[in-house]
Amino acid sequence: MKFKVALLGTGNVAWHLAPALEEAGHTVTEVYGRDLDKVQQVTNRLYTAEAKTDLDFSDSEAEIFILAVSDQAISELADEVILPEGSILVHTSGSVSLDILGYSSASYIGIFYPLQTFTKNRELSFEDVPFLLESEDATTLQKLKKLAKSLSPHQYIVKSKDRMALHVAAVFASNFSNHMLRLAEEIMARKGLDYEMLKPLIIETISKSLELGAKKAQTGPAVRTDLNTLETHYQFLNYNEQVAEIYRLISQDIIDSY
Amino acid sequence: MKFKVALLGTGNVAWHLAPALEEAGHTVTEVYGRDLDKVQQVTNRLYTAEAKTDLDFSDSEAEIFILAVSDQAISELADEVILPEGSILVHTSGSVSLDILGYSSASYIGIFYPLQTFTKNRELSFEDVPFLLESEDATTLQKLKKLAKSLSPHQYIVKSKDRMALHVAAVFASNFSNHMLRLAEEIMARKGLDYEMLKPLIIETISKSLELGAKKAQTGPAVRTDLNTLETHYQFLNYNEQVAEIYRLISQDIIDSY
Repeated sequence: MKFKVALLGTGNVAWHLAPALEEAGHTVTEVYGRDLDKVQQVTNRLYTAEAKTDLDFSDSEAEIFILAVSDQAISELADEVILPEGSILVHTSGSVSLDILGYSSASYIGIFYPLQTFTKNRELSFEDVPFLLESEDATTLQKLKKLAKSLSPHQYIVKSKDRMALHVAAVFASNFSNHMLRLAEEIMARKGLDYEMLKPLIIETISKSLELGAKKAQTGPAVRTDLNTLETHYQFLNYNEQVAEIYRLISQDIIDSY
Repeated sequence: MKFKVALLGTGNVAWHLAPALEEAGHTVTEVYGRDLDKVQQVTNRLYTAEAKTDLDFSDSEAEIFILAVSDQAISELADEVILPEGSILVHTSGSVSLDILGYSSASYIGIFYPLQTFTKNRELSFEDVPFLLESEDATTLQKLKKLAKSLSPHQYIVKSKDRMALHVAAVFASNFSNHMLRLAEEIMARKGLDYEMLKPLIIETISKSLELGAKKAQTGPAVRTDLNTLETHYQFLNYNEQVAEIYRLISQDIIDSY
């Protein structure tokens, strides 16, 4: 089943999603954004797609309209966009509920949330993108499922209330684990040490964690309740109070959870 | 250059290191531990190696003695072990200084620190283990370098004072990033959500972070200073004060560092 899809948004998700939709055989009819340059950065990645800076889609041939914009912008765009009869409007956010689309001119609404970290200009295969879907309309949900299935082997139906828990978990799993690497990079840089030394450890840590589960995979001074080492490390970090406190708090949480 | 090596210790490091030494062509002469059962768990992985529960190595044919024990145990064992003339004693710890071996009966001392996370019964290739080496004696350092090189392509010479910074960085990069995955697992489990959903995100996060650097790779509500989402997540976590505080503190640190 091939769809005609319009994309609203020019950020990381739209940038990746647009060509992936075409490659899967769908037609991207229009790409909308306020800034024409940014719209064209996306349409340049496509065979046919109108670059659009106004929100009147009443003549659009698209059936599915994907709002791939920042969480803050969803509500206003949903309220203002003029959609044709029978259209489906979805957003791609992990933390915004379905209801927010309820005041739009769409006939059907849903969620089409790609659970992945997107960065422009970095290649990413949609095979590695689980899609989290939601709609109260069964036919709409079927269509979203088919659209997702054409992009990725992983689709899940997740209700708005669970999607929030999932997004919090994703922040820990992705943003916070990445920030731990950032702090490690900075500690190394501060002493002129080569960050390359740590890379095999990081790769093995994550691979072991995904295989055995994080609880079983844990090593280090906190899980051994090695208070001497913890205290020495804490003192070492006293040049940055906030980072020292992060060290203390996470170590405490590790100690408490074994 | 092939060495005769004795191993003191029966933990994760000794368990992995012993057969790797043999595979690289060295001879493991003895394995020492207080608990004979545990010693035999290691010697059973070896062709020839005496299982030893006493610390008199005066008749040992080994030249290099590797203390692969917990940080707390290093000092006492180093003081008590009786070593033959000309022997080199090294420990494998990331957080204990070289000086601690200074009162031993060894002729030469050094550090032989494999920077990796070891778990018994999990296969690990020593190709992925950087060795951090230290000795004040140039010949000893050369020998440690040759020993490390026979096991892994990655060797670094790192002084005790820098090794401490490195170990703190390793705690962030490994133990703390793993704990972030643990917290994600628990949030998912609490809502009966499938952790599998998050795995592609985790793999892409780490791979992107190692490729672009963690600063450039960061995404999510904190780096966007999306205070609404941060507040909603913080409220969501109010069932566990400590985890909520971890959320708040790391988010703040991300905000402050962009």
